[in-house]
Amino acid sequence: MTGDLLARAREGDKRALARVLSAVENDEPRAADILRELYPKTGRARIVGVTGPPGGGKSTLVNRLAGAYREQGERVAIVAVDPSSPFSGGALLGDRIRMQERALDEGLFIRSMASRGHAGGLARTTARVVNVLDAIGYSVVLVETVGVGQEEVDVVRVVDTVCLVTVPGLGDDIQAIKAGVLEIADILVVNKADRPGADETARDLAQMLTLGKLRTEWKPPILRTVAATGEGVPDLVSAIARHAIWAGESGERDRRRRDAARSEVESLLRDGLVRRLRDRVGEDRVERAVARVADRALDPYAAVDELLED
Amino acid sequence: MTGDLLARAREGDKRALARVLSAVENDEPRAADILRELYPKTGRARIVGVTGPPGGGKSTLVNRLAGAYREQGERVAIVAVDPSSPFSGGALLGDRIRMQERALDEGLFIRSMASRGHAGGLARTTARVVNVLDAIGYSVVLVETVGVGQEEVDVVRVVDTVCLVTVPGLGDDIQAIKAGVLEIADILVVNKADRPGADETARDLAQMLTLGKLRTEWKPPILRTVAATGEGVPDLVSAIARHAIWAGESGERDRRRRDAARSEVESLLRDGLVRRLRDRVGEDRVERAVARVADRALDPYAAVDELLED
Repeated sequence: MTGDLLARAREGDKRALARVLSAVENDEPRAADILRELYPKTGRARIVGVTGPPGGGKSTLVNRLAGAYREQGERVAIVAVDPSSPFSGGALLGDRIRMQERALDEGLFIRSMASRGHAGGLARTTARVVNVLDAIGYSVVLVETVGVGQEEVDVVRVVDTVCLVTVPGLGDDIQAIKAGVLEIADILVVNKADRPGADETARDLAQMLTLGKLRTEWKPPILRTVAATGEGVPDLVSAIARHAIWAGESGERDRRRRDAARSEVESLLRDGLVRRLRDRVGEDRVERAVARVADRALDPYAAVDELLED
Repeated sequence: MTGDLLARAREGDKRALARVLSAVENDEPRAADILRELYPKTGRARIVGVTGPPGGGKSTLVNRLAGAYREQGERVAIVAVDPSSPFSGGALLGDRIRMQERALDEGLFIRSMASRGHAGGLARTTARVVNVLDAIGYSVVLVETVGVGQEEVDVVRVVDTVCLVTVPGLGDDIQAIKAGVLEIADILVVNKADRPGADETARDLAQMLTLGKLRTEWKPPILRTVAATGEGVPDLVSAIARHAIWAGESGERDRRRRDAARSEVESLLRDGLVRRLRDRVGEDRVERAVARVADRALDPYAAVDELLED
C-alpha cells in the first residue's frame, strides 16, 4: 500500500505525493516506512531557502525563481512554510491561490505547511518533507519561510543556500531583524528595489556585513530584484549557482548535511527514549508527577529524578 | 555560594539577580540547584505577555505598562525576548538603552534575552527566567516577544494573559499574522491608534474574532493605545486585571500552569534520558551513526534502532 503510493508519487501523481507528504507531516504510522525507503535516494536535489520579514514579496520572488528553474528544465518543488499560522491553517489559502496560477505545470509541485501539529518541531517536519521531494525526483526544492525568528533559522538549516530577502523601508525593527538573520544568509536580496530607499538598504546591509563575523570565507553578495516584474531574477539564479559550487568545493555543503543528519538522529533518539519510558512507567505516573509540579508540591527536577529512578 | 547569591538577589541586589539569571539561561551546573530551591516560591506573580509583529511599538507599550504597575506599588520585571537575534546578541543593546531610562528605579528589573544558546528552546528558558523572577519577589512579570511565529506562541504560553499588539497598516502579510496568533490572544491592542487606519484595523480584528473559534468563553477585548503618549494604557491595565480575575475563577489559569509544568517535566525527562544513553553507548558511537546517515549509508530510523538496541 505504502509502496504503491510511493510508486505513483514517483511517476508524477501529485495527489499520491500529497498523501505521502501528509503522512510524513502528521507523523502517521507509515511515515517511518516511507522515510526509511526514500532516505537512500535523498541528497541529489538543490535545496534553496528564501526567508525574511513579512511584506518582502518572498512568495512572488519564489514563484519567479521557480519559473526560471522550470525554463532550465528542472523539476521544481516549492515548500512554503508559514510559522505564523499555528492554528488557523492559513497556509492552505495560499496553497490554493498559487495552485490556480500554475496547476497545469507537471514539473512544478507546491506544498504549503502551517505550524500546526508538528510535534517534533516545524524544522524537523520541513526537513522530512524536503527529503521526500528530493527522493521523489524534484531536482530543485525551494523552501520559503515567513519571518525572521529562531524557528525560521532552524527551518532554513536544511537548505544548501539561504537567500535573505529584505525590502526598502520596512520600519523601526528592521535593523534588529537584519542583524539576527544576517549570519545565516548566503545571498542578500533587496526586493522591490524600484522603491525609494533601495540604495540605502543595500548600503546598510553591506555595512552590517563588514561589521559582522562571516561564518565561512563565502562573502554573501547583495542583489537587487523586482519580483513583480522579474528584474534581477537571472542574477539571483546565477548567484545561487555560484554559491552551490563554492559550497560543494569548500565542504560547506557536506557540513550542513551532516548537521541535518545529526538533528534527525537526535530527535528520533529522544522520541524513542521518551516512548520507552512512558511505556515502562505508564502515562498515569507521569501525569501525577505533572500535577504535583503544577501545585508546587514537587519541583520538576525532583519529579524527573523520581520517574527515572525505576 | 549559590545560596548566598540567591539571598543577595532576594534582597534586591540586581547584579546578583543578573548572575542567577545567567546561570539559568546558560544552563550552568548550578542552574538545577537554583531552580530546585526557587520552584516552591513560584506561582505568585502576575505574568503578562506582550507579543505581535515587529514595528508595533511593543517596547514602548511595555515600558508604559511597567510604569503603570510601578505606580500601583508593584515590583515589576520585564523580560524582553528577541527570537530574531539568534547570533548577534542584539538584545544586549536594547538592554542598555532601556536601562539608561530606568536604572535608578529599585522596583524595576529588566532582562533581555536573545535566542542564542538556549539549547532546550527559547520558550523553556523563558519559563525558567520567569520562575526565578516570580520566586525572587517580582509581583508583575512582563514578557515581551518580537514576532508572531510558533516560537513566540510557545514563549507566551508561560504567561497568564497574552496581549497581542498590532498597528494600523502593517502591510500585506498582516492578515496571515493576525489569523495565526489571534487564537492565543486574551487582549487585542491596536497601538499607534492615532494613525490613519486604526478604525479599520480594529474592525478587521473584530471580524476575525467572530470568524475564529474561541478557545474559552473569554471574549478578547479590542483596545486602542498610543504608547508614545500613554493614551489607553490605564484601560489596558484594567483589561489585564479583568482577564486575571476571569482566568482565576474559570480554572484557565490553573490549566495553563499545569501545561507549563508538563512542558518542563517532559523536557527535563528528555534531557535526562538522552544524557543517560550518551553515557552508556558513548559519544563516538552516536557520531559514527550520524556520519553514516549523512552519507546515506544508513537511514536515520535504522541508526536509532541500532543505538537503542543495546
